Amino acid sequence: MRLEFTKMHGLGNDFVVIDGIRQNVRLDEPTLRHLADRHFGIGCDQILLVEPPGDPAQALFRYRIFNADGSEVEQCGNGARCFARFVREQGLTEAREIPVETLGGRIVLHVEDDEQVRVDMGRPEFAPARIPLLAEAEADAYTLDVQGHSITLGAVSMGNPHAVILVDDVASAPVHEIGPIIERHASFPRRVNVGFAALRDRGHVDLRVFERGVGETLACGSGAAAAMAVLRRRGLVDDNLEATLPGGTLVLSWTGQAEAPVWLTGPATTVFNGWIDL
Amino acid sequence: MRLEFTKMHGLGNDFVVIDGIRQNVRLDEPTLRHLADRHFGIGCDQILLVEPPGDPAQALFRYRIFNADGSEVEQCGNGARCFARFVREQGLTEAREIPVETLGGRIVLHVEDDEQVRVDMGRPEFAPARIPLLAEAEADAYTLDVQGHSITLGAVSMGNPHAVILVDDVASAPVHEIGPIIERHASFPRRVNVGFAALRDRGHVDLRVFERGVGETLACGSGAAAAMAVLRRRGLVDDNLEATLPGGTLVLSWTGQAEAPVWLTGPATTVFNGWIDL
Repeated sequence: MRLEFTKMHGLGNDFVVIDGIRQNVRLDEPTLRHLADRHFGIGCDQILLVEPPGDPAQALFRYRIFNADGSEVEQCGNGARCFARFVREQGLTEAREIPVETLGGRIVLHVEDDEQVRVDMGRPEFAPARIPLLAEAEADAYTLDVQGHSITLGAVSMGNPHAVILVDDVASAPVHEIGPIIERHASFPRRVNVGFAALRDRGHVDLRVFERGVGETLACGSGAAAAMAVLRRRGLVDDNLEATLPGGTLVLSWTGQAEAPVWLTGPATTVFNGWIDL
Repeated sequence: MRLEFTKMHGLGNDFVVIDGIRQNVRLDEPTLRHLADRHFGIGCDQILLVEPPGDPAQALFRYRIFNADGSEVEQCGNGARCFARFVREQGLTEAREIPVETLGGRIVLHVEDDEQVRVDMGRPEFAPARIPLLAEAEADAYTLDVQGHSITLGAVSMGNPHAVILVDDVASAPVHEIGPIIERHASFPRRVNVGFAALRDRGHVDLRVFERGVGETLACGSGAAAAMAVLRRRGLVDDNLEATLPGGTLVLSWTGQAEAPVWLTGPATTVFNGWIDL
């Protein structure tokens, strides 16, 4: 089988994107692992597959996401931006509002005039049971004992659990020392993503994220949304926030209202096109 | 500039290979670094560039090798095999004996009937001053003090310095503990590549290599040649030796004579083809 693909990235979070509409594509787990392998295959964090929608009245496409181990996952903010850019570049649609079916439900992607893509990241959930976090009551900040030191952090679910720690400076933040300890702290029964955020002003934050089960990444979209949610709730930032991560800058919007979603806007970059014989 | 390329690997040591004969190619250091970047570019250990020979009476091609940091290097055994496979697959030659100009001099690559490629790895140099190793006299084995423990190792230059340590079992060998210490041991003034070799029998060795400045790699061709040289000199192996590395198996030949080169035979695999706009 000859498979055509496009390699893309969103702030360094990189994807092999496959048109499963004009190609007859069958991807089993060994094939997905081979495609994702950086030395023996193409190499990527995740594989994105574009398929026809199940219900054409509700969505233009179905959008599927596979991890490098071949497992299918619900959502990825950086991947959604690349997906939207891909279907337009490939001539699969000219729409700028692109409703898509995902394993996590229907979402709408918005392609801006500058080709940046805006994604609805969902409502922040602060209730401890929803994160989940073992705490007696919902609070702006929680104090954890970490190897005899008290660490203060905010906590929120953006579909996945996040802790956010305010630091003076991200470059010297103890991401690799504290990150893995908080990730597996007994207070977070399903473990947790750990963000280290340094405020520049009410409209700009520097951020590094230690991702659950992965380690530090170049750009974690849900981590940026979590930082927005935690900092906005505490009144430390305005409704629009630039978050500068190691891979680049994302723009977040949230009104602070419980029912409002966090919006994330960022770039998607096409790197190269190729074909592989499988 | 639209650049066509082929992604290849030799036992997982991976390359972006570029035809600079039918394409007008200009690669400066930032471009090379971009091509090699695994998240923002194509991703590879090294970039191989095929050019016309300076002297067509002496060679069919010029073969240049660039590291991921953009620097040009002299030779790479795994890359040479991919180079030979590439020029035949692309129809640039039908020859099975392919003389090429490299920064390290003229070499001849031999493509076998099974499309494995045989490469002349040069003569082993055992003289301590040529490795370089600070030792009073040339010997089959040297004893180094490593954090209070005595470590016995063989030493050889295959164009670059190598230490080879015999172990009972490569899986449990202290590659990451001892490798970096020996790499920077005061006895090796230009540092050293460190191989951990476990003999199965006189025709087969298991091998892991901690590469100078890199860390452990999937398959180090010069490290396999160094293991052959050290073990053959001590009379522990025959003239032909299979070396099984984490990335796969290489076959080595050496007669043990001072003037004879070590020959290395191994596979080269084409993974995919692509094009990138620079």
